[in-house]
Amino acid sequence: MAKRNNISSSVIRRLPRYYRFLRDLDKQGISHISSGELAKRMRSTASQVRQDFNCFGEFGQQGIGYSVTQLREEIEGILGVKCLYPAILIGAGNIGTAIANQVAYENRCFDLIGIFDKDEKKIGTEISGIEVRSTDEIEAFCRKNNVTAAIICVPRKAVEELAERLYSSGIRSFWNFSHFDIGMKYEDVIVENVHLGDSLMELCFRITQNK
Amino acid sequence: MAKRNNISSSVIRRLPRYYRFLRDLDKQGISHISSGELAKRMRSTASQVRQDFNCFGEFGQQGIGYSVTQLREEIEGILGVKCLYPAILIGAGNIGTAIANQVAYENRCFDLIGIFDKDEKKIGTEISGIEVRSTDEIEAFCRKNNVTAAIICVPRKAVEELAERLYSSGIRSFWNFSHFDIGMKYEDVIVENVHLGDSLMELCFRITQNK
Repeated sequence: MAKRNNISSSVIRRLPRYYRFLRDLDKQGISHISSGELAKRMRSTASQVRQDFNCFGEFGQQGIGYSVTQLREEIEGILGVKCLYPAILIGAGNIGTAIANQVAYENRCFDLIGIFDKDEKKIGTEISGIEVRSTDEIEAFCRKNNVTAAIICVPRKAVEELAERLYSSGIRSFWNFSHFDIGMKYEDVIVENVHLGDSLMELCFRITQNK
Repeated sequence: MAKRNNISSSVIRRLPRYYRFLRDLDKQGISHISSGELAKRMRSTASQVRQDFNCFGEFGQQGIGYSVTQLREEIEGILGVKCLYPAILIGAGNIGTAIANQVAYENRCFDLIGIFDKDEKKIGTEISGIEVRSTDEIEAFCRKNNVTAAIICVPRKAVEELAERLYSSGIRSFWNFSHFDIGMKYEDVIVENVHLGDSLMELCFRITQNK
């Protein structure tokens, strides 16, 4: 069974990718995979894969490989993918709508139970079957629904005040698509920042190097 | 002046974040910053910051700190942010529209010159002043405009055929928001994959650990 002790942060960072590949393999009905094949998909090495999986249990069998389902379930457990934390999303613009659709569709990690916007034209409409409410209702909604996490899809200048309201409403976990650094202000929050511009700059660097 | 030799990949990964902070400081009219202050913003250490910047030149002065403008410009040069590679975007849905707006607004790395969609209702509309064209026009457009990169914002199942068409049209760099692994098929392409689900799973893990 699982050890789950002392899993390093670099292994943790690789887990979502392993999880994605294993889920795909599972869907394709593939029951076992060798460390070599998995390494090829991960652009890693077989010994790296074996070392990573060795951190949390023994799933491999000599000559047969790893059980895809067992390994997927184990990683799912470690990541907490099935926990479905009650979450709200604020900002029903293009990026907010895309994220809301994805979260609602994938039904992993977050149970999206509320969407908020301050635009009168958006309030009352639906995204993935979830009604868009006025941002005025955030505090009452959070109190009533025991919300764990907030997805921030509003412009940077609106986030400081919003973060304060969400923090006061008991929210300590943020998936942050804005460019405001929530974690700088509050020390006891968990923030995952998405900076798409950083990804573009990394690509730009690689294109530039290649010229 | 700059050394730019042997910059490790971990330093490269930190450069976009340094760049963001330095740009903000520059906008605020701050001329110098110490390694300690920068480290605080980066959630790093002063010695890490000094070591990173030492890789590509000498910009710090004892007691005064680093010149914000000089350092920003240097990093800008390394990343190739001002190169403005001609790029097209395919898929004018919510995520595509959000990305198109951001790329057009920020005017960094990519010069977005074309947007394509197969939806008749979208063709002929504009996003950030750029006309949405039919995907049928991709090949002719790429030939005429010497396009360097493509931003892929279409569903996974549509990417395989699309990637083939873009590859045949000479495109070798991809900013990929789909879940299709373009790099697995073509060996001579540069791909930056954006998997928002991985970011959510990392957040989910941290929430789970914290419970």
